[in-house]
Amino acid sequence: MLIGITMGDASGVGPEIILRAYAKNEIKGRFVVIGDYEILEYCKEVLKYEVPVRKVDNISDIADGYLNVYDMGILKKDELVIGKISKKSGYAAMKYVEEATKLALDNKISAIVTLPMNKEATRLSDETFTGHTELIAKICGQDKYTMMLASDKLTVTHVNTHVSMEQAIRNVKKEKVYDVIKLTYDALKRFIQEPKIAVAGLNPHAGEGGSFGREDIDEIAPAVEKAKSEGMNVEGPLPPDTVFLKAYKKQYDAVVCMYHDQGHIPMKLLDFEGGVNVTLGLKVIRTSVDHGTAFDIAYKGIASTRSFVEAYNFAVKLVG
Amino acid sequence: MLIGITMGDASGVGPEIILRAYAKNEIKGRFVVIGDYEILEYCKEVLKYEVPVRKVDNISDIADGYLNVYDMGILKKDELVIGKISKKSGYAAMKYVEEATKLALDNKISAIVTLPMNKEATRLSDETFTGHTELIAKICGQDKYTMMLASDKLTVTHVNTHVSMEQAIRNVKKEKVYDVIKLTYDALKRFIQEPKIAVAGLNPHAGEGGSFGREDIDEIAPAVEKAKSEGMNVEGPLPPDTVFLKAYKKQYDAVVCMYHDQGHIPMKLLDFEGGVNVTLGLKVIRTSVDHGTAFDIAYKGIASTRSFVEAYNFAVKLVG
Repeated sequence: MLIGITMGDASGVGPEIILRAYAKNEIKGRFVVIGDYEILEYCKEVLKYEVPVRKVDNISDIADGYLNVYDMGILKKDELVIGKISKKSGYAAMKYVEEATKLALDNKISAIVTLPMNKEATRLSDETFTGHTELIAKICGQDKYTMMLASDKLTVTHVNTHVSMEQAIRNVKKEKVYDVIKLTYDALKRFIQEPKIAVAGLNPHAGEGGSFGREDIDEIAPAVEKAKSEGMNVEGPLPPDTVFLKAYKKQYDAVVCMYHDQGHIPMKLLDFEGGVNVTLGLKVIRTSVDHGTAFDIAYKGIASTRSFVEAYNFAVKLVG
Repeated sequence: MLIGITMGDASGVGPEIILRAYAKNEIKGRFVVIGDYEILEYCKEVLKYEVPVRKVDNISDIADGYLNVYDMGILKKDELVIGKISKKSGYAAMKYVEEATKLALDNKISAIVTLPMNKEATRLSDETFTGHTELIAKICGQDKYTMMLASDKLTVTHVNTHVSMEQAIRNVKKEKVYDVIKLTYDALKRFIQEPKIAVAGLNPHAGEGGSFGREDIDEIAPAVEKAKSEGMNVEGPLPPDTVFLKAYKKQYDAVVCMYHDQGHIPMKLLDFEGGVNVTLGLKVIRTSVDHGTAFDIAYKGIASTRSFVEAYNFAVKLVG
């Protein structure tokens, strides 16, 4: 088992989080950073961390007692712009993820843990970029996947993520809803003998019998019925405004959400920095911190390692 | 000052909540119940409460030391179906609210506090019924209003409530968003010298610069600018997944939400039974409990009076 950690946008908090988590011995097992050696060395100097960073050219050349970095050699320390949007940093961050995905597809690494990218920065070199998940899915050549946010308090998955609300509503189709229920169920099965899944409705009060929209009846209910008929323990569509409290009270192991904010609003309220972002359904296993580049505190040595450590541990758990 | 309390659907927890709040001396000042005397007497017998219920035929004929009931004489105790949907109970509940609204418009009562109705029950006699707020607005002949949910932890108002998500998106127009900002500001001004208001975006990350939908740029931003130009302290559109945590941390006094669940999901998660539902913008002042008829526990004497007492106190505060 070897976990690949992408360094994230070098202008943000990614490099220091890796260094500090290593220094504090918060992550265990075999891992390798996919990023720029020169940046990690520089960050170490700025923050005066005592970390033995080691450059590796061959991904399997991991040495114990070092923070091994598979060096992409893209970003130089003179080009680094701390705490600001930078085209080069954004480009480099994308390349780390592309490389990590290829390494995972080649079975050179077992899973990917990603530090945050800055979308605006990456869009300066690739305007089609929408997010880590979409990028990895594209390289895998897959389009059935979902974003899970997991924490001790609540776990949610999404039928839609980074699309407009208008598009999200159009995407609530029985096939897609079923796919996300199944992906959620299969992922939870890795840890939970009999996962219990709630499916949130799309409309207020889950449409209240068709009074406020038909999607709950026409699309979500049939997907839930199909999943049930295959033996999954799943309920829905449930009124969205109360289902999260029920899940928080452990009546359900996860809530399948119809759109980005339906899952993200309760998640961020309950566990702002502790959540782990897991991509389900792709050929490669990938977990991520659930925070951004935090430019305002970059290279100050104060960014929390908690979400990263949880993402790393979750990846280890998934790899088994 | 005289507060009118509508009894709510007699099959649910409304009658017993009024009786117990009275018995425990939880509500102060001058108030009158608008409902059915016979039902309150019966509920009192079932639960063995010692409450001096008094029937009044003229709304101003309030006597101290009694729970005064302006008797509508609609529902008889023999017709009462406890804990189940009943056409007659649903019809009666609607009539209490209609009468209370007329009394408020005639300045016979200063404000209305409503106990829960059951929508399905009321729809058996009026299939156009969608909720208390819409009913009161119709009688007032007004269509600019909003639902505020208020608690110590979070306060939210809504640009859309009981409509499908598809319709909600179409309704996010600058005029309507501005109206709700203004209604929110005016309501808060009654208690807070300089209210600070956040406006949530519609799309994920508030559209992320137009990448995920244009409404945040084209409709919400101009409404916020207009409000600002009139001196209101308002910010937005803000990413919906983080704005509620900021409001919870008291960075804002209220969050203007674009659709029902955007406001209801965080509210129910933070304060399931304590929220007060306030209708803003109508000629009559109305507050309500933020829970339903709770048929499963009706006439058992265990329904909490907390939300009702908060709704009552909020009405007293608004009447000033």
